[in-house]
Amino acid sequence: MPLIAEIIAVGTELLLGNIANTDAQDISQGLSELGINCYYHTTVGDNHDRLTAALETAISRADIIITTGGLGPTYDDITRETVAEAFGLRLLPHEPTWRRIEAFFTQIGRPLTENNRKQAFLPEGSAALENDWGTAPGCAFFARGKHVIILPGPPRECRPMFRDCAMPYLAALSENVLVSRNIRVFGMGESAVEQKLRAIMEAAENPTVAPYAKDGEVLLRVTASAPTLDEACALTEPLVADILEIMGDVVYGVDVESLEELAHMLLREKRRTLAVAESCTGGMIAARLTSIPGASKTFAGGVCVYQTALKTSLLGISPEALRCDGVVSEATARAMAESVCRVTGATLGVSVTGLAGPGGDGSDVPVGTVCLALHDAAEGRTLVKSGNFGDERHRVRQMACNTALDMVRRYLQEL
Amino acid sequence: MPLIAEIIAVGTELLLGNIANTDAQDISQGLSELGINCYYHTTVGDNHDRLTAALETAISRADIIITTGGLGPTYDDITRETVAEAFGLRLLPHEPTWRRIEAFFTQIGRPLTENNRKQAFLPEGSAALENDWGTAPGCAFFARGKHVIILPGPPRECRPMFRDCAMPYLAALSENVLVSRNIRVFGMGESAVEQKLRAIMEAAENPTVAPYAKDGEVLLRVTASAPTLDEACALTEPLVADILEIMGDVVYGVDVESLEELAHMLLREKRRTLAVAESCTGGMIAARLTSIPGASKTFAGGVCVYQTALKTSLLGISPEALRCDGVVSEATARAMAESVCRVTGATLGVSVTGLAGPGGDGSDVPVGTVCLALHDAAEGRTLVKSGNFGDERHRVRQMACNTALDMVRRYLQEL
Repeated sequence: MPLIAEIIAVGTELLLGNIANTDAQDISQGLSELGINCYYHTTVGDNHDRLTAALETAISRADIIITTGGLGPTYDDITRETVAEAFGLRLLPHEPTWRRIEAFFTQIGRPLTENNRKQAFLPEGSAALENDWGTAPGCAFFARGKHVIILPGPPRECRPMFRDCAMPYLAALSENVLVSRNIRVFGMGESAVEQKLRAIMEAAENPTVAPYAKDGEVLLRVTASAPTLDEACALTEPLVADILEIMGDVVYGVDVESLEELAHMLLREKRRTLAVAESCTGGMIAARLTSIPGASKTFAGGVCVYQTALKTSLLGISPEALRCDGVVSEATARAMAESVCRVTGATLGVSVTGLAGPGGDGSDVPVGTVCLALHDAAEGRTLVKSGNFGDERHRVRQMACNTALDMVRRYLQEL
Repeated sequence: MPLIAEIIAVGTELLLGNIANTDAQDISQGLSELGINCYYHTTVGDNHDRLTAALETAISRADIIITTGGLGPTYDDITRETVAEAFGLRLLPHEPTWRRIEAFFTQIGRPLTENNRKQAFLPEGSAALENDWGTAPGCAFFARGKHVIILPGPPRECRPMFRDCAMPYLAALSENVLVSRNIRVFGMGESAVEQKLRAIMEAAENPTVAPYAKDGEVLLRVTASAPTLDEACALTEPLVADILEIMGDVVYGVDVESLEELAHMLLREKRRTLAVAESCTGGMIAARLTSIPGASKTFAGGVCVYQTALKTSLLGISPEALRCDGVVSEATARAMAESVCRVTGATLGVSVTGLAGPGGDGSDVPVGTVCLALHDAAEGRTLVKSGNFGDERHRVRQMACNTALDMVRRYLQEL
């Protein structure tokens, strides 16, 4: 029987929306890696009765209960006492922790208050989880048939303590390791992807397949569980191969982070440099490409020719051509891609001109129309493409960026 | 009796730690503003039985139940059906939504699958909450003595729908109206802001003041509650005035959305056009300026001179000057700002050159160093500025963008 975990975050600041519950995310990622299922996250305030109720609910349905937060020195921090009470355990002073806290306050030269002393108490029979990142230690114990782990709330304490102290403790409870493979798709919507893969997704048990839609892309995550890393990896292989076969070239990569990362990898591999000429995307493609460290090796830069006049002043496209072809046209996209190679010296140029809306531009071009071009200065070739990405400004711009980066990767993959 | 709310986030991706539950944070902030207490957040996977259990628990202890997520078109999206079942309601087709989805797919030229149809069904008797940011509508209804609100999961759909549709619905449950004023601060950290305003924040009851740190800025939200809109507005006035007095010119605006929106407003007002020359920010400033509809009236465009050679080819800065002054220097920033006005014809130019890291560039410039310049071509004046924004690439770039936009607004406000 696989173990089931539940995370209880304690803190009124979470319920007031002052901070997001990133501890639950960090811990859940770790649990996934360990092959431990997590069915619920609960957030509750620093309140004895409501925390007790949350603990009782968790005890009724989980094998492992992990709490975060409420270990501070102030009177409203009540997690330690409340958890001990729920499990029928006394709190006992933990000598090493007590000495550690004393040493810490001596070091920072602040007086040790009576409140700080309560941080040195742990439920009887628990193993202390040392906190190298703050004063409050965590702890782990087994009671009422449950494994319980108590961690501090601040993410920069909780995250390393979970990774360094709690994960080894939990790994010893589980027999399997988990491996996830990420298949990245652009150019097909989530529901179409799912329709294509429905049979596979429903049949899959180990590994499993789950789709996630984000920023105009779909991520397919294939996750396998096995006694060793190698076995888990091997389990994913046939399913990943099946999915690649079914999906075809809308899959842009497996275990890559993003289209921009892949573009840089391919540019490096093919020894090319890229420049961009952006109109409606107004710098977004360049911003994504330069988000990757070391981008200057393969990305030259480019122009943001947002006003029509700049298409002439920066790229030398004649006003007559712009008038005749239209600013949003495949001909203008082609001229932009060719010009940006010329003015920057890059061997590859990508361009976007479109109407992101919400309003029209006075021409008969419908809102959402985007024209793109890719020019290879070394081969003297230009590809053009156009489409309509709807009437929501942000989405039109985002899809235009994705499409431009996807043109680059498709071209380079075939080169 | 004050109303008690509970938020149930539905999504296996949350339990796997793929994303943080920022919807709960966004909604909790809004509930705080409305004076509605929230005692629990629960996260549950896309699983009928466990979602049903979470709903029954919420029904037993809350007056208002808000769900997020699980409204997508795929078979694992089950929130709509499961909530309707828990409240004993049938699902009925909602004609306007159906036509809306049809029109969307016609426009983007993708086939409408059977899956998409289920997004047009809503629990009987519910009010549709229109989704201008995606395909899945939300809804609100009253059943089993509870107010229930169903929202989509993607934060960029959930956040505006909660603010624009759900908050007015919830406000109507209360006798008072709430007015929030947003005071936007750039150039002072959250803890410094808090220290300056601590006395005011602790004394404030109606209106209240709450600080939120985000993307290198601080938002101070002043919220008043009163029987009418005018009374609530009037209540905020003295506190807003006090805060402006205390904070001084790090406040860049009240009730404006962002530095980029303010920059466009000021450019329009002063009849100026702006161009950008970006190196380490690599298109981010242009991308932010062009995110605003109608940007082409005041933003000309610019250049992304990421590789050093482009500072010469696109801006005409001599290689000797670059070698002598250094690529990351106030002299180079000045030359970039002046040149970009010349090549684009804009009357105002802003430039950024810096070292975003994580690695150095072989020179002795420390990682995190950023130099900026603002050139006014009409007045023949140039301002320069430099700073170090730390060693985290994304933060260095973001702070550089904010600083550049802040230079523009400060210059124009004084013009």
